[in-house]
Amino acid sequence: MKLSQFYTKTRRSMAAQDSINAYLLEKAGFISQVAAGVYAYLPMAVRSMQKIEQIVREEMNELGGSEVVFSALQPKKTWEQSGRWEDKNFRQIVYLDTDVDMTFGATHEEPMTIAVKQGVQSYRDLPVILYQFQTKFRKELRAKSGLLRGREFRMKDLYSFHSDEKSHQQFYEEAAEAYLTTFERLGLEAYRVKASGGIFGAEHSDEFQVLCETGEDEILVDHQTKTGFNTEIENQLKVVDVKKLDRVKAIEVGNIFHLGTKYAEAFDLKYLDASGTRQSVWMGSYGIGISRLLGTLAELFNDENGLKLPRQVAPFAVVIIDLTNGKTGRKVHDLLEKAGIEVLLDDRDEPPGTKLVDADLIGYPIRLVHSAKTAQDGKIELKERASGKMTLVNLEDVVKHVSRLLSLKAKV
Amino acid sequence: MKLSQFYTKTRRSMAAQDSINAYLLEKAGFISQVAAGVYAYLPMAVRSMQKIEQIVREEMNELGGSEVVFSALQPKKTWEQSGRWEDKNFRQIVYLDTDVDMTFGATHEEPMTIAVKQGVQSYRDLPVILYQFQTKFRKELRAKSGLLRGREFRMKDLYSFHSDEKSHQQFYEEAAEAYLTTFERLGLEAYRVKASGGIFGAEHSDEFQVLCETGEDEILVDHQTKTGFNTEIENQLKVVDVKKLDRVKAIEVGNIFHLGTKYAEAFDLKYLDASGTRQSVWMGSYGIGISRLLGTLAELFNDENGLKLPRQVAPFAVVIIDLTNGKTGRKVHDLLEKAGIEVLLDDRDEPPGTKLVDADLIGYPIRLVHSAKTAQDGKIELKERASGKMTLVNLEDVVKHVSRLLSLKAKV
Repeated sequence: MKLSQFYTKTRRSMAAQDSINAYLLEKAGFISQVAAGVYAYLPMAVRSMQKIEQIVREEMNELGGSEVVFSALQPKKTWEQSGRWEDKNFRQIVYLDTDVDMTFGATHEEPMTIAVKQGVQSYRDLPVILYQFQTKFRKELRAKSGLLRGREFRMKDLYSFHSDEKSHQQFYEEAAEAYLTTFERLGLEAYRVKASGGIFGAEHSDEFQVLCETGEDEILVDHQTKTGFNTEIENQLKVVDVKKLDRVKAIEVGNIFHLGTKYAEAFDLKYLDASGTRQSVWMGSYGIGISRLLGTLAELFNDENGLKLPRQVAPFAVVIIDLTNGKTGRKVHDLLEKAGIEVLLDDRDEPPGTKLVDADLIGYPIRLVHSAKTAQDGKIELKERASGKMTLVNLEDVVKHVSRLLSLKAKV
Repeated sequence: MKLSQFYTKTRRSMAAQDSINAYLLEKAGFISQVAAGVYAYLPMAVRSMQKIEQIVREEMNELGGSEVVFSALQPKKTWEQSGRWEDKNFRQIVYLDTDVDMTFGATHEEPMTIAVKQGVQSYRDLPVILYQFQTKFRKELRAKSGLLRGREFRMKDLYSFHSDEKSHQQFYEEAAEAYLTTFERLGLEAYRVKASGGIFGAEHSDEFQVLCETGEDEILVDHQTKTGFNTEIENQLKVVDVKKLDRVKAIEVGNIFHLGTKYAEAFDLKYLDASGTRQSVWMGSYGIGISRLLGTLAELFNDENGLKLPRQVAPFAVVIIDLTNGKTGRKVHDLLEKAGIEVLLDDRDEPPGTKLVDADLIGYPIRLVHSAKTAQDGKIELKERASGKMTLVNLEDVVKHVSRLLSLKAKV
């Protein structure tokens, strides 16, 4: 890809933002603020988000999920039927509670239960595992921290339907494992943290938290086992030795909930078991914040020069800057692209300084600079963004060298 | 893929629907109605929609577009600034006009103009071509016709920014060509039809219409040149010989608008030309209804047994039904999957009749049936859904035969 054919603009100067991720992502041209807690995703961010979604999609498929896309609009009456419409906590966060018979739901237990009811008659129709990527809306009073807490955000939510508590519990643990794998593939080390059921009507839940000094959650963790507790349930912690736990700040990137038979009862989602008896379906719900993940990655992977997103989520793997007549840069670009490497050639009519500063700000994992000096020896300068390590590579070896570096770094 | 690992349920009986597409797509398990004009997309539909989107994405990239995702929520004040908030036609179709300072916009001229303003200073920064896939919302009073006119729908919208009228006009024509290519790749023959500017503040526009007896638009067309006029502008038709045109029903699948400098003026989107003079940017907007395309394809490609979606948008290319012990079916499935063919093995514990009826209803382009009878000669029965043509194929030739058929059919 040539930068002249790809719309992206970094910003030289920018007012202070409410968070590192908002500041860096906006300065690097990934996002543009539309209103408090509402962002437009520009081409660089779309590429990163698509990569995050694809990793999550692969793991949810591996878990046995089938992808769906439910509507954002939901009939108000279904929320009345589940009893959540009267829930003060929920009423505050949904849109459209006045003159229309619909609501924008921040979660999809109701319509999923209703849709699955159409397809499930007997135990042979279970389990059902559905997931979706969707834009969600919350009347968020505390919109802040850039992509970490917005009024409009991208989510992956998955809903599981099992015939009994035992098979549900087993799947719940498989989902927890899949979550840890997902976050690891994204370059994040997540802790599994016990928490309350919250507004999902769940008895209890598990959160997946990534340690971060600027995170808004406070958790107690055991670094050895990578587990812990959200301090919101501290009064339940009498059984464990709190002194052994470390109190840290963190960002919640995912959560999973036991829903029991609550929604099955509310919507009469029953099945006939092997003996012909009607039984309620056991459900769970499982969320991952996709746009929040991009915010978390930006919050964690950066330095004073800009972003350092992990290779598997960076918009492009390689940037090429040719400080000579451009011929070598174009040649290397074509070779890398032919080898299937996501490369961007900075062919803008801009001064060298601007291109070098932008490369660090956007944080391409590998930067190749061709100059009169490197040309003398038939070489190109290769800089790794994460470590800052510089190497001079023979021009004829550049594809081999870049491929090797990228496959070494690839956790995917 | 094995059907036991992919959630889909057809429906044996179903109440009459307001349209063929809603009836067939719901019966075949592609969609599930949530409310009037609001549908959930189930796994089969998600696969088709992703294929439609990918074809559109490739054509928009080819046209020079960069993919973005803007927010559905938009500040009310920006709509006041463009003058559209006072437009009675618009006020009726947007959500959230009461107690919040935001609106769900059914179109994105305002935020796109504002975002591009941040990146454009001089003529060297132009043109800018941005597009997105997005869920849009309209307070649709006439929600009807299944996926053809909904209150929530999926759109591709593209916005172009050029330095002058001439370069804008040239791009507008390129976009029109790209649209015709896109619809052709999807298996649709679209007519380019002149229409009024509508609520987009455009001077005039072009619609892309697919002939369909159940369509809600009435157009006058010349079948030779595949062009025509929307009857809404009939009074402007004095210059052409209306008698030569054919009056037909059609479905609008895309539209393109000249916006002139209207939005650039409203939001002061100016650039410095080569002589250092400030000039207004020329804009166009270009829409394609993604979910409407799925509805249109279902409306056009069907028979009394079910859907016959073109191969390039069908959820799977091949279904396998093994009426014997299942061993051969599994083997053929593995061979086809290894060859990169999207195949679904119907391994459900259901009677043969159910599987055969479902295969026609869902409309897999190729159906392979293995029975005791075909097994005698080492063959498998191959049926093409579109033509109904049946062939007996040697088991050892099945991959070769299916691959050849699919590549012959592939318009993509």
